[in-house]
Amino acid sequence: MTLTGHSLIAGRPVVGEGKAAFGFNPATNEQLEPAYSLITEAQLKAATSAAAEAYASFSTLDPETHAAFLDVIADNIEAIGDELIVRAGQETGLPAARLQGERARTTGQLRLFAKVVRQGDFRGARFDPALPERTPLPRADIRQRQIPLGPVAVFGASNFPLAFSTAGGDTASALAAGCPVVFKAHNAHPGTSELVGRAITKAVQDYGLHPGVFSLIYGPGRSIGQALVSDPAIKAVGFTGSQSAGIALMRTAAARREPIPVYAEMSSLNPVFVFPGALKGKVDALAQQYVTAVTGSSGQLCTSPGLLFVPAGEAGDKLAAAVARAVASCAGQTMLTEGIASSWNAGTTALGGESGVEVIGQGTPGSTENAPAPTIFGTEIGTFISNQVLHAEIFGAASLIVRYSTAEELIAATQRIEGQLTASLQLTEEDYPTASLLLPALEQKVGRIIVNGWPTGVEVGHAMVHGGPFPATSDTRTTSVGTLAINRFLRPVAYQNLPQELLPAALQDANPWQLNRRIDGDLVLAHSPVAGDYEKAEVNA
Amino acid sequence: MTLTGHSLIAGRPVVGEGKAAFGFNPATNEQLEPAYSLITEAQLKAATSAAAEAYASFSTLDPETHAAFLDVIADNIEAIGDELIVRAGQETGLPAARLQGERARTTGQLRLFAKVVRQGDFRGARFDPALPERTPLPRADIRQRQIPLGPVAVFGASNFPLAFSTAGGDTASALAAGCPVVFKAHNAHPGTSELVGRAITKAVQDYGLHPGVFSLIYGPGRSIGQALVSDPAIKAVGFTGSQSAGIALMRTAAARREPIPVYAEMSSLNPVFVFPGALKGKVDALAQQYVTAVTGSSGQLCTSPGLLFVPAGEAGDKLAAAVARAVASCAGQTMLTEGIASSWNAGTTALGGESGVEVIGQGTPGSTENAPAPTIFGTEIGTFISNQVLHAEIFGAASLIVRYSTAEELIAATQRIEGQLTASLQLTEEDYPTASLLLPALEQKVGRIIVNGWPTGVEVGHAMVHGGPFPATSDTRTTSVGTLAINRFLRPVAYQNLPQELLPAALQDANPWQLNRRIDGDLVLAHSPVAGDYEKAEVNA
Repeated sequence: MTLTGHSLIAGRPVVGEGKAAFGFNPATNEQLEPAYSLITEAQLKAATSAAAEAYASFSTLDPETHAAFLDVIADNIEAIGDELIVRAGQETGLPAARLQGERARTTGQLRLFAKVVRQGDFRGARFDPALPERTPLPRADIRQRQIPLGPVAVFGASNFPLAFSTAGGDTASALAAGCPVVFKAHNAHPGTSELVGRAITKAVQDYGLHPGVFSLIYGPGRSIGQALVSDPAIKAVGFTGSQSAGIALMRTAAARREPIPVYAEMSSLNPVFVFPGALKGKVDALAQQYVTAVTGSSGQLCTSPGLLFVPAGEAGDKLAAAVARAVASCAGQTMLTEGIASSWNAGTTALGGESGVEVIGQGTPGSTENAPAPTIFGTEIGTFISNQVLHAEIFGAASLIVRYSTAEELIAATQRIEGQLTASLQLTEEDYPTASLLLPALEQKVGRIIVNGWPTGVEVGHAMVHGGPFPATSDTRTTSVGTLAINRFLRPVAYQNLPQELLPAALQDANPWQLNRRIDGDLVLAHSPVAGDYEKAEVNA
Repeated sequence: MTLTGHSLIAGRPVVGEGKAAFGFNPATNEQLEPAYSLITEAQLKAATSAAAEAYASFSTLDPETHAAFLDVIADNIEAIGDELIVRAGQETGLPAARLQGERARTTGQLRLFAKVVRQGDFRGARFDPALPERTPLPRADIRQRQIPLGPVAVFGASNFPLAFSTAGGDTASALAAGCPVVFKAHNAHPGTSELVGRAITKAVQDYGLHPGVFSLIYGPGRSIGQALVSDPAIKAVGFTGSQSAGIALMRTAAARREPIPVYAEMSSLNPVFVFPGALKGKVDALAQQYVTAVTGSSGQLCTSPGLLFVPAGEAGDKLAAAVARAVASCAGQTMLTEGIASSWNAGTTALGGESGVEVIGQGTPGSTENAPAPTIFGTEIGTFISNQVLHAEIFGAASLIVRYSTAEELIAATQRIEGQLTASLQLTEEDYPTASLLLPALEQKVGRIIVNGWPTGVEVGHAMVHGGPFPATSDTRTTSVGTLAINRFLRPVAYQNLPQELLPAALQDANPWQLNRRIDGDLVLAHSPVAGDYEKAEVNA
């Protein structure tokens, strides 16, 4: 496909009336063609208005068409072929194998949400049947379902040009909920965004959906983002990126006449706690796993472990030494952008300059541009607890080993840090009592707890939580990965005493969508004879 | 019980170091004993710190103790006897029958949440079993549950001294979720709050719970409220009251270093749409029902109908005339406070002074203080659409009849108004096609749609939604009445590869709490043999 450099607003290519922007190859700092014309705030209105118009038909789509639409987006992305991997690699410096895996994750995620749409539990069908004979007052028939919030603004992340970008988790879950999406491309991978955006647009056209269901816009950094979040047509926001950008969007959304939810996934240190039992044996393997988790994708993962708590004493010394050896053989990998590499340099320089912090081990710079040497720092837990500078995320291949002596110190450190996406425990059975002491404090700070594993690699499933207390995310009640993410874009509506003719399909007695339902508080599965017999059950009540 | 005039902080009576405040009998404007001493911000800390300390044990209570605790709060409230009804009547001017009904609703609500706690679906147990043989990467065992957010600040409403106050829906749902509660009493019914607060405190003591599970505080209006919402120990807020106070709390919560959710239920016009078919027959009955809904509890209900859309023409004229007759025989009832009566006077004076608005009917002032004459205004739909002043809620016995000619006008009016708690339709079968046109627009504006009924009378059940888009509430994703309200105080946590010994009871293979669970995306009921056999199923997978 020839890249056009245009936004795609409600199915039509739109030449931006603002400045032009280019992708850059971070491995060479060379500019990539074509130029992407940035839209103005006036042009943005076309996207948000179309999304508002598309809501009526898209939000009421039958489940099979709705699910097939998501499946076809996945098909269309696969049909782009190697061109997508090549362009994404040029724009991000990420290796092809990583991008192929990310593509599989992206299409798998869309197909998983298609299953969720077919299955239908997210519609939250609840029935409280009428009780005409109840005293002192009869009860009316009341039914509830979840409906989509409205048009959603989604912001692409730099570090996952596919899985957290144009057709990533936020877009997939919003579309699955029945919300039109206005997607603001990340300017670091405009070509990748265009390729995927065209795959979505083609699916919209193939299914004859309202073209406003999806728009892809290129705009000047923060100003168009703020305008998008301020637009009254937008009813929710999905974002993955820096804490400062996320907080700016939260403030804008809260200051609107009608405040709207912002789901921002921002920053995380992802502490890993090594317990004494885990040091008996396989210290080298532990060290290697840690260094792999820190340096993979040049450390540019939301779940990269930025903290490793290691026992003081000889066994811990051995682990630290093994880490130093393992990282020494690591060459730096190209970072996503020159700006991110520059921030990494500033962050590591600042951390290294703090009192009580030393460099434990370091790799070598890579052969490309923007590929600094992975670096592992070390400190004592007292220093860590008392100095907030050591609690700041450094995005990239850097991590801090914190030496501790007691479980009480681990609890104190946990209570001191801010909210995180994950915490991991390396332990054996002998450590269970100590881990039990720490777990309640950890639950208050994170969205996912891992035992004998590493936080990188976020499974896209039904039980996953990729979320956590602020500032890991803006809204700890949610996840941005996994099927629970659909709940972010829904709200309940109750229907009291509506005739069958006026009830939405999800709430009709005949249950045409074969939904599991909560009847008088109890779950009744769709295949249960009670559910199929709702009308009769009601008459007999 | 002798009222003490003290706050109840973590089980102990605390004399406030601030000014004193008194309840007032709005029927006589007489001051009620005793004086209530208001606490200072420094004293507030004792309540929030105790709540934070109570979290660890309360959030992990076994379901049976947890549920029994809620049941006993209900028992203790009933045990207060007539004293509660008498005091609440003195403080609010509400009649005894209304307060007895409200007490039954309050205790019924607590017992319903006890059932929810025993049933356990709110714990959101999700299991994605390990797939060690999966390629290219194996899948770890991942499980998810919902945990309580943390201490919750609850603000009592003036208009429901029992059901939306000390042990009202916000308190009940927060306690059911496992969150300690710091309750800020409404200064209009301090004695009622003390009686109920002591009933809760006694239940905390009877069950040997941490005393920080519940505190009742009296404080100076907004300042202590802002301090409470700013307190880092508080993790969510429940509020029912005015739009200005609710928005002030939202702003404070959003400006915290760690923003927290605010569930504020604020204002609503609750439009009622009368379709032509409904005017064929029983016009007098319709008019009487409307006037009853407008004037009941002196119109001081969140769901009081503030708008009645009536067809232009002869049939609609008859309805308007019948309304005028019905309201003429209505005497004013005592309003909750002198301030609320004064606001009502200002609001109705302003509305009556707007161009194109006339008084259609009026009752007579009541024989007590603060009992103004119920008033029904009228206007044309063009005037209504173009003048936002006509869209403001007047809290109390006033309502506006809007005459319309076409369905398009109704849709235009619906699109113009802000978010509402409810919309109601009076119709017969011949009106279904017109109603179908209006319903999609209504769904975008309200939380509950009612056919051939009135919005007053909010059933406490599983399917109820007492919520809606801003400014009806601060968070349209939720309800403040009904069992779904518990979700407001929960957040998901995932557990990856945890040994049985470290997993919480809700996620253990043996399913000791007999929970329904979602396994690989499918609901598996607790009584199903598959669920009981989870361990084996996993091995066979």
